[in-house]
Formats: sequence, structure tokens, C-alpha cells
Amino acid sequence: MSFVADSPLPGAGAAAVQPGSPGAPRVLVAGATGFTGALAAHLLWRHPGFELVAITGRSEVGRRLEELYPRYRVPLEIAELDIDALPPVDAAVVAYPHAAAAPTVAALCDHGARVVDLSADFRLSSLAAYEQWYGEHPRPELLEQAVYGLTELHRDRIAGARIVANPGCYPTAAVLGLAPLARAGVIADVVIDAKQGISGAGRTFDETTHLSMAGENILPYNVARHRHTPEIEEQLAGQGAHLAVQFQAHLVPLDQGELASCYVTTTRPVSPAELEQLFEEAYGSEPFVEVASVPPGTREVAQTNFCRLFAAADAHTGKVIVLSAIDNLWKGTSSQAVQNLNVMFSLSEDAGLT
Amino acid sequence: MSFVADSPLPGAGAAAVQPGSPGAPRVLVAGATGFTGALAAHLLWRHPGFELVAITGRSEVGRRLEELYPRYRVPLEIAELDIDALPPVDAAVVAYPHAAAAPTVAALCDHGARVVDLSADFRLSSLAAYEQWYGEHPRPELLEQAVYGLTELHRDRIAGARIVANPGCYPTAAVLGLAPLARAGVIADVVIDAKQGISGAGRTFDETTHLSMAGENILPYNVARHRHTPEIEEQLAGQGAHLAVQFQAHLVPLDQGELASCYVTTTRPVSPAELEQLFEEAYGSEPFVEVASVPPGTREVAQTNFCRLFAAADAHTGKVIVLSAIDNLWKGTSSQAVQNLNVMFSLSEDAGLT
Amino acid sequence: MSFVADSPLPGAGAAAVQPGSPGAPRVLVAGATGFTGALAAHLLWRHPGFELVAITGRSEVGRRLEELYPRYRVPLEIAELDIDALPPVDAAVVAYPHAAAAPTVAALCDHGARVVDLSADFRLSSLAAYEQWYGEHPRPELLEQAVYGLTELHRDRIAGARIVANPGCYPTAAVLGLAPLARAGVIADVVIDAKQGISGAGRTFDETTHLSMAGENILPYNVARHRHTPEIEEQLAGQGAHLAVQFQAHLVPLDQGELASCYVTTTRPVSPAELEQLFEEAYGSEPFVEVASVPPGTREVAQTNFCRLFAAADAHTGKVIVLSAIDNLWKGTSSQAVQNLNVMFSLSEDAGLT
Amino acid sequence: MSFVADSPLPGAGAAAVQPGSPGAPRVLVAGATGFTGALAAHLLWRHPGFELVAITGRSEVGRRLEELYPRYRVPLEIAELDIDALPPVDAAVVAYPHAAAAPTVAALCDHGARVVDLSADFRLSSLAAYEQWYGEHPRPELLEQAVYGLTELHRDRIAGARIVANPGCYPTAAVLGLAPLARAGVIADVVIDAKQGISGAGRTFDETTHLSMAGENILPYNVARHRHTPEIEEQLAGQGAHLAVQFQAHLVPLDQGELASCYVTTTRPVSPAELEQLFEEAYGSEPFVEVASVPPGTREVAQTNFCRLFAAADAHTGKVIVLSAIDNLWKGTSSQAVQNLNVMFSLSEDAGLT
Repeated sequence: MSFVADSPLPGAGAAAVQPGSPGAPRVLVAGATGFTGALAAHLLWRHPGFELVAITGRSEVGRRLEELYPRYRVPLEIAELDIDALPPVDAAVVAYPHAAAAPTVAALCDHGARVVDLSADFRLSSLAAYEQWYGEHPRPELLEQAVYGLTELHRDRIAGARIVANPGCYPTAAVLGLAPLARAGVIADVVIDAKQGISGAGRTFDETTHLSMAGENILPYNVARHRHTPEIEEQLAGQGAHLAVQFQAHLVPLDQGELASCYVTTTRPVSPAELEQLFEEAYGSEPFVEVASVPPGTREVAQTNFCRLFAAADAHTGKVIVLSAIDNLWKGTSSQAVQNLNVMFSLSEDAGLT
Repeated sequence: MSFVADSPLPGAGAAAVQPGSPGAPRVLVAGATGFTGALAAHLLWRHPGFELVAITGRSEVGRRLEELYPRYRVPLEIAELDIDALPPVDAAVVAYPHAAAAPTVAALCDHGARVVDLSADFRLSSLAAYEQWYGEHPRPELLEQAVYGLTELHRDRIAGARIVANPGCYPTAAVLGLAPLARAGVIADVVIDAKQGISGAGRTFDETTHLSMAGENILPYNVARHRHTPEIEEQLAGQGAHLAVQFQAHLVPLDQGELASCYVTTTRPVSPAELEQLFEEAYGSEPFVEVASVPPGTREVAQTNFCRLFAAADAHTGKVIVLSAIDNLWKGTSSQAVQNLNVMFSLSEDAGLT
Repeated sequence: MSFVADSPLPGAGAAAVQPGSPGAPRVLVAGATGFTGALAAHLLWRHPGFELVAITGRSEVGRRLEELYPRYRVPLEIAELDIDALPPVDAAVVAYPHAAAAPTVAALCDHGARVVDLSADFRLSSLAAYEQWYGEHPRPELLEQAVYGLTELHRDRIAGARIVANPGCYPTAAVLGLAPLARAGVIADVVIDAKQGISGAGRTFDETTHLSMAGENILPYNVARHRHTPEIEEQLAGQGAHLAVQFQAHLVPLDQGELASCYVTTTRPVSPAELEQLFEEAYGSEPFVEVASVPPGTREVAQTNFCRLFAAADAHTGKVIVLSAIDNLWKGTSSQAVQNLNVMFSLSEDAGLT
Repeated sequence: MSFVADSPLPGAGAAAVQPGSPGAPRVLVAGATGFTGALAAHLLWRHPGFELVAITGRSEVGRRLEELYPRYRVPLEIAELDIDALPPVDAAVVAYPHAAAAPTVAALCDHGARVVDLSADFRLSSLAAYEQWYGEHPRPELLEQAVYGLTELHRDRIAGARIVANPGCYPTAAVLGLAPLARAGVIADVVIDAKQGISGAGRTFDETTHLSMAGENILPYNVARHRHTPEIEEQLAGQGAHLAVQFQAHLVPLDQGELASCYVTTTRPVSPAELEQLFEEAYGSEPFVEVASVPPGTREVAQTNFCRLFAAADAHTGKVIVLSAIDNLWKGTSSQAVQNLNVMFSLSEDAGLT
């Protein structure tokens, strides 16, 4: 407590006692000052199966994370990442911008950690696609070691991966919604119209995030050039659907929440019964994918690792509509990273997530 | 002023002096208690070319409109609509729900008024389509007298119409965005994904409008069955594009604003240059349609009668994307009603709207 | 999963397996359809030390709570409350409006349950004060059995109580902020200006909760007549400060969050050092009260049972300012109810709350 | 129109034709890129009695204002302020930060302009008070030429002033609410608790304005040290009330709107009838102050120059409560600047403001 002057909170720091189990795998979060890194740290701090041993940042060094994000209540201090001085860690989450991430991922791997990378650096298996959309790749030789971390699609390979490329939030929603149709070979064409809350812009301070500018606004952006397009296409191709997808993103004035509305022109008529069967087969036993009976609002999955899907056959147009709702910071990013860590370390897939 | 007890505001009532011109056409707003009727009353009250002589409601009778909507500052009292006792009026705006509107529109026409109807009752020229989507039509014999009130498309016929069927907000945004392509005959298929603020639900008090439920939410609704679909189709057909459109609406947490994102599969390649030319030809001289150089946010047109369009050819997919932003209560409804009244009474089309 | 038609979610119902421990005290939530009852059900459903055996409502009977509040993920069906047919329960939370609550509380007590009542019916020990502010009391003879459930102040008596009157949200924030000063005998006069999110209005559908009316608004209400006034005064009197308090409430456009700004005219000068000592003594060992070093935003305690306090001595005016932030639905109501249940059933006070 | 690439809007620039009258007083807005300067430019551009001849900025030079603030629709280009090259202007609005403003105000005065300064530089007549709260004054010799621009209190002196110091938004709301009581000599003590939307933070990009941080938050700031305190005190002293005021500000999650809740301990009992009379005498003939019969929400005065007041005598505590609602950017800043310009140039006081 202080009076007017802003001194640090009492307690905390090195003496902070984590709720998680001692003896559990030791994990580091690099880049914990941004929205996604901070949430990953929060989830891992309270996780019963991991020990969060350090959080690092490229700014705010020396401050406790709970000063930046009080509601996350992580009392650890943000440190500089110095891999030479880093004690052994079993796992790391890297929350850096693309291109900056790859060298850190590589160094942490060399240090013995298995890494979940939240950036785009290892999401595309095609180097050519990466270079077209992002520029030169800092560590192309590692691409083949990386597994795409959409848990529901690549669980087996994630279990043994050294590097897991955590998906973008839009691809998470879109690919989960479209995978059953891709596997069935019925996608002739698809339009994906995605809407997301302002947290999707991250801890960025500009016109797109200022409440007096982002509020009372619906803002389309990156028209005909969003970098999540090749990621979606590559993943759908992996499920059997080879096509150019029309993807468009919009910012809407909420904090956390994302909806991908997918409009599929089918190669042949798809009946409601077949649709139901395809989604049941795909997700009937998935712990974090719910097939809903009504169109899902994003509020229903806010602050959860759930993806809620709704599919309908439109008798009027013959198209299939799939609506896919997630929390962009949770299933769209940080809680999916934890889901992947659970798989990688043979924990229950929902450990620390319910 | 009162103290604790809630007495009426001082002044106002019958003595209220309208800013508008005496001797101008006399206009009535029926159904002024809802969002769209109240805004129409506000716009007409301050309009230099009309005299707002009465506002009526099916509830709240005896209260001044400024008590319900303080910011509109219309001091008139809400009266019951009694057509037998109604003095002559030159024009009326009817803001009733569909099916309830048609008999009132008919009675006001018989009374000598030219009517702008905000409901869906006279929007569809096809009685069969009306009956399929809305049920029995109360006054089918009047359908052929009604002109569809998308000003930019039907200005000439609106000028002489007895009944103007003011468009739905979604059709306004979508049809303005797609008309240039429809006329050019290049629309093979179209997906329209529309997002709208909560005012689109009107003065409805339920789960869709409660701030603690509508906030932090993106909510798709009326999947594969939105009543604006036939209206859009009929209007596009009138511009030469005969097709079933895929239309989907979403509520997002703002007050006023609407964006229609239109994804057009074309019948042949459309170059950026042709696209630019088509939109320039269509809207180069329109006072209320702006062709923007960047994707428009709805905030840019909030509380205006403007529609802001952006069109792009996507080299990756071959599709054309059209983004169309309006204020759903203004150009989407009430200010477009005033624009139509201006046309009907030979006033400058932007009178009272800038 | 269904297609267009809105059928119930699969699974759930009677077969739902609660995360909580079998053999734990059995608890009922009566009035689970409102915001506070639903949150209490959510917290008790996931609570490791209670078994939530039934939820009842005066509407929505037969629906699962997760249909009304998807994010709470409580799969139990809402039943009618039929105390004659009710199996034995150890505890109950009653979330009814005032006056309606008392008879139900009495009946549940007779049935053998210990009850936490979220209404105002048992908060005032003075029957005269109740009658002045609320009207006739339905069960005055039970007043003396009830203990006021501000856990930090009455923990010992709560432990043995049959009826716990859970505090109002405003008194929770205000009294926690002022109690250290009341005990020190330094309060000569106090103004409490409180602000709260729209969830404070509950599942009420009207002008105060419609996003298009409550948004972009700061709305003072119940000027000079808020019913939480006598509750605050009685509690402060219990801490030694006998005075008439000036209390004023405001609605601001967020969902959950409440700040009480308290301005204390002191009986004698209070130094920053004394202030620090008073708050340290009061709350140094409290698990859910934090004395902050900077003015607290309500976001810092959102969706937690924490109260975050900040106190400052203003050298310019001589007054003491205390800022008290809580989540109105959590510490302000439902999580405090769980905190009280924990105390009543000798569980760890933070069980199910972290 | 352009496609993907972001080229300037067509038209506009030098050829832009202002709606306002030619031959009217010529006015400049210096610092038009911030929220308040941009709004002043918008109001003066559409003003029938002024000609807006130039807008300048310390950044964004060469861009049209409508690119930064599309909804303001001011097509002028932002220029650098070069007073040597500036053609004669009759008036200027200066929207600079404090300390930066004074030299520019001085230079514009020397250039022949009468200036409304939106900064704090000339608000305090006491140099000592300025230096205590703001530091060294850049041009103290001009202080005595400046008139405090709360129009309702200083209309006569504003009419002839060379420099008008436009009030802070909080003092505007608070002093209008308290002036009738100050003049009556009944204020013994006062607590002012003020709440404001995020636009009050201006075009600042940081944690206080990011929607994901400012949303769902109620944030008190500058506890016991807000710079508007001496301004309020000096103005109340001018009305006869010499006292130290307790002032506290809070940010709440809306865009534009401000409420000052004032709690007055009176020197003697004040009856409701006297209260009514005091406010009627003070404001009965004021065009922009409304004494309301119910507690005012800020939405009622959004985007207007109105201040809406409500006063109540609390029989329980003996205090008087005054609630004062304004739009912080309008009456709180920019529209009051225009109101002052109207007075200075002998136009109707509401010209361009209704």
C-alpha cells in the first residue's frame, strides 16, 4: 500500500509460490509482456502439471507481470532472456513477432527445451509460401522439425514434436469449421468472413485499438492480402481440399472473441443428415470442440479453450454455412498452446484448462 | 426542474416552435416511439423544408418525444393516431412493424398523404415472395402503387410515388455495393456477410440487446432464413443479376453502424481498372455514395446519410470484394426516408441531411 | 447438433457429472435464472467441496442452465422449487428479489438447510429501518437469527449461522473501504460515490440495460434514496462510526465491475503513516482484500472474489480518500456467497474461488 | 477510389468549398490533429458565421483532416503553422498542450487574431497557482489579458477579450453545477466526483485508451492531485465560495460524455424550493444550460453544447447534490470554444451549434 506515490505491491517476487506442482516439467514463457504471452504465463502459473520457472520480456524487465496484467495475478518478475544463463527448462512458449521468433525458438531448442511458438515462423511447411507472405525466413532448416499445432488435427505428431507452430487464431476457427467438409471432399469453393475483438491487435497502441476510434466501428482490414490465407489453404489441403480460399478479416468493438463465418459452395448436394454425421464423426469425442444446436455467439466460449461450431445446409442456395466461434486469445492462441503442451508432455489434454 | 420527484420538463408541448419553415409541406410520423420513427421525427423536426405537424405512437401517448429520446430534442407530444381527426398532411412516415404497417399506410394515403413506409410491407413487388417470407399481405392491391425507396436506384419513380417502400438496412448496403456489378452482368455468385450494431434490433428489450449479453459478443442470427434475402434478390434482378444470394447477418456490440462484406464470383475476369470505372459511372455524381480509397469503417459514416463503398479485385482468388458501410438507422432507414421525401417534394436531395 | 432448427444440446441433463466431490455438503441454488443465482450455481458446480444437487427457477423450468448462460457450462436442468418434494440439502443459496426471498429462506431453514440469502430481507438488523426502506417484512421473527455476510467483518458469527444475509454489492465495497477508519473513530462525515457496470441491473430488460441506451452513457440513479444507504450505515455503526452517509450510485457502460469512491472528512488529522497502519492491521492477513499501491481499476478484480483498496490522505483538503474496487457479481454477490458457505462448512475460505 | 493501395480520396484540397459564409470572420485552428482541435475545425467548417481558412498541425502535415477524422468531413489540408507566412485571420483556436500553447497564443495575438486557447495556460489568473500545478509559465505577462471562457459566467468580458482561456472540461461541468450555490453563499464544503469517457484522454495511444484495457474498467486517476482543482477553486471563489474542493476524476468506458457529481455540505439548511429558485435564477434564460427534472445521463447531451443539471436536497444528510452532465469534447471543450467565438464576434450565441 502506498499513498499517492506509486511503489511496488508488497510481497511477491522471488518468494512467490506457484499453485502448480513441484517436480513438474519446467516451462519458460518468452515474450510475456504481450497479450498472448501474458495469458500463456497466467495459464501455466495456475497449471497443476507445469512449473512456470521464468517469464521474459524485451521490455518491462524487472516488473512483476501482475503489475502489467493485474487480473492474471502472476507475481513473477519479467526478466531479460539470457539463454547462456538460463537454467534447464523442459518447455518454452515463445510469444515474439514473426521473424524475431525463429532464432529464439532455435536457441531454446538447442538449450534442450521443446517449444511452442506462437508466431507464424513455423506454421507454413512451404518455404516458398513463407517467403511470399512474410519475406526471408530466419531459420528455414528448422521448418521440417515443426508440427502445426492445431491440436485436433495433428495430435499424434504434436505429442512427439520438438517445435510446435501454434496456429493463428483465424486459421484455428476456420480450419476446425471446414476440416470435416474438406475430408469429405465436398468443398468446391469457400468464402471465410472473420470478425475479431480488439485484443486481436495485441498490445498495440494506435488508431485500431484506441477506444474512441475502435469503439462504434466495424473495420475490415488487409483486404485481399491477409497472411492467414496461405496457412488456412495449407491446412485445408492437408485435409484434402486444394483450393484458393477467400479470407477477409474485420475488427469489431469487443475485447476477446472471434467468429469465422464460412460459406461453402459444395461439389455435390450435402444433406443436413450428412452434415450432422460429418461433424459428429469429426468432433464427437473431442474435449474442446462443441457442435452447437444454435448459431454460436462468441460470448459462449469467452475465456475458454472451446471452439463452438454450427453447420447448416441452405436449401435456398445449396451452400453449406459453418459458423465457428472461439476466444481469439484462448483457443485462438494461448490456451491452445497449453493444450499442445499437455499433449507434448503426456498430461490430460484438458489439464489446467477447465 | 424538480427535486427527487420526476415531474415533466418545463416548457415544450404545444407551444414548441419548430426550426423548420412554416408553409412547408406538412408531415406526420406514425410510430415515433421506436428507434427509426424517433430518428425520422428528429430529422424532420430540424428540417428546413418540412413542417413536422404530429408524431404518433401506439404507446407512450402524452409524453414528449424528448423525454424518451433526450438527445433528439423534439418537444412534440406523442399522440394516438386517429385518422378521422387528423388535419390534412402532405406526407407521412410510417414506422410500424410489417403487417401492421400496410393498413395504416392505406388509410394515410386515403387521407391524402404521400407515404414513406419503413416496414417491409411494400418492398417486394412479388406478392408470392411476400407471402412466402412474411405471411398473408394485408393490402396486396396497393403493391403496384409502391416504389422501392433505394433513392440512388429509383430516384425518378420515387419523385412521383404515392407510396415509397423504404428499403431494409441490409438491402441498402448490399444493393448499393453490388448494383454496378449487377448492371455489368458480371455476378455469377455472391456471398453477403453483414454485421450490424445493436440498434438494428430496435427498441426491443431482451437477451439480444442487454448490454451484459450483447456486449463482448459476435452473434450470427437467422441462419439461412433472413427476410432481407428476397428483397436483395429482387433488387439485384432489377439491375440485371438474377441469382440466389447467400445472405447472413450478425449482431456486433456497437450502437449504430452496418457493414456488408460482399464476395462476388464473377462471370469473367474483372480488372481493377474496369472495377474503378464501373463504380465511378454508378456513383460519380451521387451526393450520398462515396467510393473510398481504403476499406471503410462504419464509424466514418456514423450519423450520416452516406454509404461508403470500397471495391477490390482479388488476384489470388479472382473474386471481387465489395465493402459497403452505412449507419443502419440513418442511410439504412430514417435518413434515407428523408432523402426520399426530399425527392418526392422536389427539395434539394440533401436538404436537412448535412 | 442440429441444422437451423433449435434443438437442445446433446448430453447433459440428469446424467451430468459434477466436477465436485461426492459426499460433500449438498447445496441448492434457488433462483438460478438471474445473473447472481446463475453465477452462484456456476461457482458451486465447479467447487471441489460442495455437491450442487439442484437449481430452481421461477421461470425457464426444464431448460439447462448452460442454455441460458452458455459460458457457465452448468448442465443441470432448472426445476421448480417444491420444498415438500425436495430431498435433504445441507445448504442453499436464495437469489430472489427482496420480500419474495424471506418465505423461501424460512422454508428452506425448516427443511434443514443453512441458507445464504442474496436478497435484502435479512441484511438490516433493525426492523424499523427495513420497513422504512422496503415496506412490511414477511418474516420479521427470523431477523435475529441472521448474520450479515460481509465475511471479513463477521467471519466468526457466519461460521455458526443458520441464515447469512449476503451483503449488497455497494455495501460490500464501501464498508470494506471504510471499516478501518470507522474502527479508528476518525470518520466525521463521508460521501460515497459508487459506479457500477450494467450487470448490476440484473437480467432486467429495459432502457437501463439496452446497449443502445446504456452504452455511451453515465447514469446516476436513485438520487438521495438508495436502499443500500441504511445497510452501509448499520455496518459502519457496528464498527463504531455512527453517522448518516451520503451514498450515490451510477451506472456506467461495462458488464461487471464496481468502484466505490469514498471521501472522508476526518475528526482529526490522519497521516499517511497512520492510514497505512490502519489498513495493514485490518487486511494484512485477509485472503481476499488487497491494499493496492496505485488507484485500482475494476478490471484488476474482474471475475474474482478480490476487493482491491487504495487509501490516500489529501494534504490539500485534509480529507481521506478510499477507493474500493470489486466485481459486483463476484465479491459483490455470488462469490462472496460461496466464501460464506466455505466459512459455514469449515472449508478453506478460498475453496473454489481461485 | 483505389484498389488495395491507399491513395488519397478524390476531390477536396484547396478547391474545397466551405458551407460557411464568405465575408465572415476568418478563423484558424492550430493543432487540428487532436480530438479537440479536430472537432473545433469541424464545427467551424460547417459554421454559417465563420470562414475556416486554415488548419494546422504539428504532425500529419499535408493530409486532409477528413482522412484522420472521416466523420468530421473537413476536406482542408493540415498545414504547418508558419505565422510569418500566415495571411490575416480574425480569430484562432489553439489546441496545444499546456506550456506549448502560450507562445503560439502570443504570436497569433501579435498577428492580429483574437484567440480562444483550449490549453490551461491562461485559465488561472494566479501566476503562483499556475506555477505550483504546471511549472514555469511561458508568457506570464499575458495572463491579465485573458478572460476565463466559461460563457455563462463571463459572457460580458468574453465579448471584448483578446484571449479567451477555454475552461477545462471538468471545471465546466462542476462550476456550472455549483455556481448558483456559491453565489448564495451556502457552500461550506464540497466533494466533486467526476467521470469521463475515454476521449478525455485525447489522441493518446497507451494503456488508458486501448479498448482491451480501458474497456470493462472504471479507473480513478490523479488521486489528490488533479490540475483542474485550482481552476475550479478559483472560479468558485469568483462566485463567492472560497474553499478547498475535493475533486476526483475517473475514466469509464465510453467515448464522449462526462458527469460531475457534486456533494455540497451547506452552511445552512437549503430547501427544495430555494434550490429550485437558485437554479432558475441562474439558468432560466441560458440557451445551453438545462435544469432537468430527473437525474441526467450523459447520453442526453452527447454531441451537443448543452449542460444538463439536476439538483436535490437530501433530507437524510442535509447535503445538496448537484449532478452536471456534458459532452466533454463539446461543451467541455470545442463547442464551448465556438460559443465563445460567437460571443466575441457578436453572432447569435447558438450559431453553428444547433
